[in-house]
Amino acid sequence: MDNEFKIIKDFFLQLADNRNSMKLTNDAAVLNFSDSFLTVSTDMMIEGTHFEGSENPKTIARKLLRINLSDLAAMGAIPYGYLLNLSIPKKNAFIWIKEFVKGLKIDQKKFGLKLLGGDLSQSKKIFISATIFGKAKKKVHLNNTAKEGSNIYVSGTLGDAAIAFNFLKKKIYLEKKSRNYFLKKLFLPDPKIKLGNFLIDYSDSCTDISDGLYRDLNKLCYHSGICANIFCSKIPLSIFLKKILQNTNNKKKLWETILCGGEDYQLLFSIPKEKIQKFETKKLRDVHKIGYFSKGQGIKIYNNENKILNLSNIGFSHF
Amino acid sequence: MDNEFKIIKDFFLQLADNRNSMKLTNDAAVLNFSDSFLTVSTDMMIEGTHFEGSENPKTIARKLLRINLSDLAAMGAIPYGYLLNLSIPKKNAFIWIKEFVKGLKIDQKKFGLKLLGGDLSQSKKIFISATIFGKAKKKVHLNNTAKEGSNIYVSGTLGDAAIAFNFLKKKIYLEKKSRNYFLKKLFLPDPKIKLGNFLIDYSDSCTDISDGLYRDLNKLCYHSGICANIFCSKIPLSIFLKKILQNTNNKKKLWETILCGGEDYQLLFSIPKEKIQKFETKKLRDVHKIGYFSKGQGIKIYNNENKILNLSNIGFSHF
Repeated sequence: MDNEFKIIKDFFLQLADNRNSMKLTNDAAVLNFSDSFLTVSTDMMIEGTHFEGSENPKTIARKLLRINLSDLAAMGAIPYGYLLNLSIPKKNAFIWIKEFVKGLKIDQKKFGLKLLGGDLSQSKKIFISATIFGKAKKKVHLNNTAKEGSNIYVSGTLGDAAIAFNFLKKKIYLEKKSRNYFLKKLFLPDPKIKLGNFLIDYSDSCTDISDGLYRDLNKLCYHSGICANIFCSKIPLSIFLKKILQNTNNKKKLWETILCGGEDYQLLFSIPKEKIQKFETKKLRDVHKIGYFSKGQGIKIYNNENKILNLSNIGFSHF
Repeated sequence: MDNEFKIIKDFFLQLADNRNSMKLTNDAAVLNFSDSFLTVSTDMMIEGTHFEGSENPKTIARKLLRINLSDLAAMGAIPYGYLLNLSIPKKNAFIWIKEFVKGLKIDQKKFGLKLLGGDLSQSKKIFISATIFGKAKKKVHLNNTAKEGSNIYVSGTLGDAAIAFNFLKKKIYLEKKSRNYFLKKLFLPDPKIKLGNFLIDYSDSCTDISDGLYRDLNKLCYHSGICANIFCSKIPLSIFLKKILQNTNNKKKLWETILCGGEDYQLLFSIPKEKIQKFETKKLRDVHKIGYFSKGQGIKIYNNENKILNLSNIGFSHF
């Protein structure tokens, strides 16, 4: 168990012993107000931790909304509104905020969000958080209900954002023609609102991949008391990443980046046996089966030779 | 108009053009879910801006909840739950969090709050924010509905937290026997939940005093299109502060601290003519009439000789 997980379990769980928090096992809390569930989630972006500070404020704004929206997608909820906390240096504050607001405006419109309120302050480093509200009519996705025999799926492609992150940290080199592709995947994730909502009728678990497939899947396994079996050959990769994989000498290390790098903001979900056939006939674009759940605990990852892959770096934790 | 107010008006108002945000004029947003209003508000505490960093984490936790609770009090809502964003340095994180959680626990119990979720991260400086949820059965307080002829009241005593702040900044000296009193007022504000809820049947405006009486009253005047008349002789002061006032040579400067210093977290509200008599018969403890609203705009402050007091420092703004 990583330290962040441990902190939540050891310290915060005792404070959240209530039905709405669902014991902090999910991507958002759920408040029931007669005709609809209100789903709430909050995420931070901090200069020096989540971004460098020199990025375009417009991009930071859009990423902030999108990482919060991804939590709503993971719950199967429809975006409603958000609260914003913004603290920035005093110097050039007006110029910075003007650009930041442009970004908020674009994605408020795109995702049907409204600003509900917030708090404004100044600080040496940029600190931003948003609390997002979504509505769910019927039910929400849970993370402690995945069953033995359910197939495991992911949306989109994995690892692209982690590659961009490593490029910015000068850990890898990227050719010019693929650079923009990877950076866009890091700075402008695409929250899977429609898919998350569609899956309400099918899945027995669903989460978004923010801390890497390994870590988010591990949480899901822990909360559901189940073992995941994952096949590298089934993990969807972009053509650019496939090319890098072909050319690298250290395939294991690259797989660690793909599986543990984080910031994918794709959906990770499972479909129970009795619904697999109906689900497969839907032939959803950009959705791939990557494995299945079995009795036991933890994650077994099989490499392209169907041998167990032991990861030395098992995902991002702040602590 | 100060810069913070201007930033909200010029940049964020366009994003919040909806009924729930009430055009960002209030202390919290309100979501209507058939049988009750859900009231939401969010506030930050940042190391170096709102606190030094060396304070007891337990105290920081309690203050965080209490400043957020004060926004619920200002709306007349009853505390329900909160989301927590916490980012702290990695070093000694477990020890720090353990103490912090103790503080949360005490005030969760005291105010009937439950933790609903949150986000955890690490950073060089401490960044904390909470988003608080309250319920209101009938209606909520608004800030754009104060009327000509309404009497203006405040709860508690004003200026104590500002005195403590100036003491910590080494701007004034405090005798040992009064020091703890003032520091407690700064670190452990007392959100006026019961009073805020009681006032639902009486007041035509209500807000909490977080940025100083002058600034918060000025916002209220602006949103209601009205002028406030305030009398220094009526401002409730603690016996400790009265003593400082007696002994100071620069009374005007001290009045600036009292009226503009901030962090009082008392309620500032007004009672319309037709309800004044009934309200006064309630003889509420710790509630004092400090003036009245008249036609016009802005604030007129009368000193103890009934002459207009012109303040040179008109309240805290981050920008």
